[in-house]
Amino acid sequence: MENVLKEITPKSVDYSQWYVDVITKADLVDYAPMKGFMVIKPYGYRIWEFIQEAMNREFRATGHENAYFPLLIPEHLLTKEAEHVEGFSPEVAWVTMGGGEPLSERLAVRPTSETIIGAMYAKWIQSYRDLPVLMNQWCNVVRWEKATRPFLRTTEFLWQEGHTVHRTREEAEAETLQQLRIYQRVIEKELAIPVVAGRKSAGERFAGAVETYTLEALMGDGRALQIATSHFLGQNFAQAFDIQFLDEDGVLKYGWTTSWGSSTRMIGGLIMVHGDDKGLRLPPRVAPIQVVIVPIMRGAERETVLAYATRLKDLLEVKFRVRLDARPEFTPGYKYNDWEMRGVPLRIEVGPRDVANGSVVLARRDTGAKATVSWDAVESTVEGWLDEIQRHLFEEARQRLSERTVAVTDYREAARYGYRGFFTGDWCGQEACADQIKAETGMTIRCLPLDAHPMTGRCVVCQEDASERMVFARAY
Amino acid sequence: MENVLKEITPKSVDYSQWYVDVITKADLVDYAPMKGFMVIKPYGYRIWEFIQEAMNREFRATGHENAYFPLLIPEHLLTKEAEHVEGFSPEVAWVTMGGGEPLSERLAVRPTSETIIGAMYAKWIQSYRDLPVLMNQWCNVVRWEKATRPFLRTTEFLWQEGHTVHRTREEAEAETLQQLRIYQRVIEKELAIPVVAGRKSAGERFAGAVETYTLEALMGDGRALQIATSHFLGQNFAQAFDIQFLDEDGVLKYGWTTSWGSSTRMIGGLIMVHGDDKGLRLPPRVAPIQVVIVPIMRGAERETVLAYATRLKDLLEVKFRVRLDARPEFTPGYKYNDWEMRGVPLRIEVGPRDVANGSVVLARRDTGAKATVSWDAVESTVEGWLDEIQRHLFEEARQRLSERTVAVTDYREAARYGYRGFFTGDWCGQEACADQIKAETGMTIRCLPLDAHPMTGRCVVCQEDASERMVFARAY
Repeated sequence: MENVLKEITPKSVDYSQWYVDVITKADLVDYAPMKGFMVIKPYGYRIWEFIQEAMNREFRATGHENAYFPLLIPEHLLTKEAEHVEGFSPEVAWVTMGGGEPLSERLAVRPTSETIIGAMYAKWIQSYRDLPVLMNQWCNVVRWEKATRPFLRTTEFLWQEGHTVHRTREEAEAETLQQLRIYQRVIEKELAIPVVAGRKSAGERFAGAVETYTLEALMGDGRALQIATSHFLGQNFAQAFDIQFLDEDGVLKYGWTTSWGSSTRMIGGLIMVHGDDKGLRLPPRVAPIQVVIVPIMRGAERETVLAYATRLKDLLEVKFRVRLDARPEFTPGYKYNDWEMRGVPLRIEVGPRDVANGSVVLARRDTGAKATVSWDAVESTVEGWLDEIQRHLFEEARQRLSERTVAVTDYREAARYGYRGFFTGDWCGQEACADQIKAETGMTIRCLPLDAHPMTGRCVVCQEDASERMVFARAY
Repeated sequence: MENVLKEITPKSVDYSQWYVDVITKADLVDYAPMKGFMVIKPYGYRIWEFIQEAMNREFRATGHENAYFPLLIPEHLLTKEAEHVEGFSPEVAWVTMGGGEPLSERLAVRPTSETIIGAMYAKWIQSYRDLPVLMNQWCNVVRWEKATRPFLRTTEFLWQEGHTVHRTREEAEAETLQQLRIYQRVIEKELAIPVVAGRKSAGERFAGAVETYTLEALMGDGRALQIATSHFLGQNFAQAFDIQFLDEDGVLKYGWTTSWGSSTRMIGGLIMVHGDDKGLRLPPRVAPIQVVIVPIMRGAERETVLAYATRLKDLLEVKFRVRLDARPEFTPGYKYNDWEMRGVPLRIEVGPRDVANGSVVLARRDTGAKATVSWDAVESTVEGWLDEIQRHLFEEARQRLSERTVAVTDYREAARYGYRGFFTGDWCGQEACADQIKAETGMTIRCLPLDAHPMTGRCVVCQEDASERMVFARAY
């Protein structure tokens, strides 16, 4: 490691380069030697583990269980649901050789698992007593993407995919929405990212779904990120895979299925929502290091300061994730910059004067605010400040989302904002109008928001009577 | 689900069929539609999650961090270490098509990740200050196996693989042994499986390793299972991948690397060590359900009993993993058998008399012992009994391992025991003698045990002077 601060391109100069600088220099991720593949380094993977823990808590509390289904899917299963295969087959990686021999049937590396899971569910489900089936798996998936960007769109990524079967349409629809709201809760509470919840328009639905629900977040550059989705699959997959059950009334019926997924893409969102020109800003709940202690050690008082800092670490690490940075080869100033770049929410400086006074100096990553606190108050102050930082990051992002959400009556008004931000407007429901927006401006319908005011006006494209309220934006 | 107890073939009649009956009927696993692939069902996956938690605690306590490396490895990387590629290439599944086009270089679905991780480490490590690098990943791997058996040997399996780089040979050797002992601690403490720790003989080493260490467990049928391994890789991979660092003395040196792995195979061991003719017996620490409450509900007292059982569940689930089985369609007797088959360590029966007396009846899965306990004592008794069951299962397995470990001076003595059990004896160190044992008896050298008494005698094959003490057995 060189003894100079790794530089980060300012957001205003080149947002894409800023993103790449932050993710690589903060040691979240690195590029693998194969195009489109990434390595998630420990600092990035720890964030993923915190997300997994939070999701698992919510999934379990609502009766879901984790399981594991095979990575490879025989071609004949993948092709059973017509729309599904049409949507996914262009992106599939195929295994054609195994054990030194060509395979008699090629196997898809799963791009998503509705098909293999559907085949198993058909085997497991016989009676209404077997329902609902509520399973989730954490795994890797592969989609052969042309343009990739770490966390946001990579050939392989990590995710969870939930797959459920229900007795009735109503129950499956309720599940679909329940899981969307679970995602919203975790993403808002843990990642401090405010989202807009909505339905996808027909043109943006998951391949094979009757209805796709989505959470859309606004990134720092004013572009949208689809951050989690939940699909009501109707009986499409149940029919394709023969998922039938004998109901209480003695009639054989098709199940109603759902699927829902969230991925390492959320980490990309986290970076782009909270990051600034100094680097990452991590919400305390998902920060691998919540507090970094930097001892200011000079000459004779070196040992005293280090002992004091070590005691502080011992005190705080009972409750918090703490790192003591005693590296002798770097100056305190270098360390401040380094940990700010890595997004550690709270820094504690301790120098000879602090030892003498029995105090420490706290510094917030989000606002830069500093305060001197006595030893006795340090634990409670750290706890309070971490809560406050978590709240503040969310509030700041919520504020920006609100400011950058603009209601329009004509989609061309978005040009005034450089097509940056969320635009809300009414829509006649015709795909032709959506296509026109996309062709002219690169914006797409992100969702038909669930919590919107009722729509009353005219389509922002054709000015005909509108049937939907939509949010549209340029998206990642 | 049919209203009859699912039958299990007795171990003595057909051990293989017993194993298959237990794993499928206890809902641990199911066969996927592709030969050699398994689906891990929620009851089996939960056990895996407990193992992961225990391993992660130990790995973190010793400074290791989780990360994630790509699933697919370009052929040119796989072939860099000569012995490694020779060992693994016959088992590789190859991706040859992606995004609708043939790939210019085929990609191996990782059979293990030394090569891709080695390529990244070469990029990340420059100075002695960057060492040690201590990383682990939880992931899936694929090895094209001919004969498969769920959990024990499947085409795809889940595992963790640790990969470390060190400044000195001594440090890498110490790491290799430390990780072996961590495995031993988790496997003995959590899974209640006693193991023999040893080195592999040259013929049984990991492809590319200088030294392979192993833990060998004895299954219920007297066969050995290699349950975890830890490899000292010397500088083989460092040289192949150019993992070099500038040492404090200004000299550019190759790193010393290790790798170590444990997999879902451990669950297979768990089943075969503790299971009996009634089905699974799960050690409480990894049991998805530690206590099942079966209310005995008849006629008028139905509601009272159910209310009592529900209060009991509420009381116990604060501390334990509890299931209340109030299914109306099954008799208590059916439920007893069903939960015994699933290996739940402790059953609590509550009937009208228990409600009247303010008591409950506890029944142990491991010994069948029963006791009536007053309401006030139930929580502490459950805690004590669960501890006792955990201890007893380990003790029972340790006892069997001890009884079935036989010291021999001639390998042919093993015939008297039907080649079942662990046989210890001296060995001259010549592969020819190992080959002779294998060819004649199907037994292999499981390990050269670390904790054995010093060897003093003659080779059990050729009767020449021996240089090693070995454990040999038929193995899975």
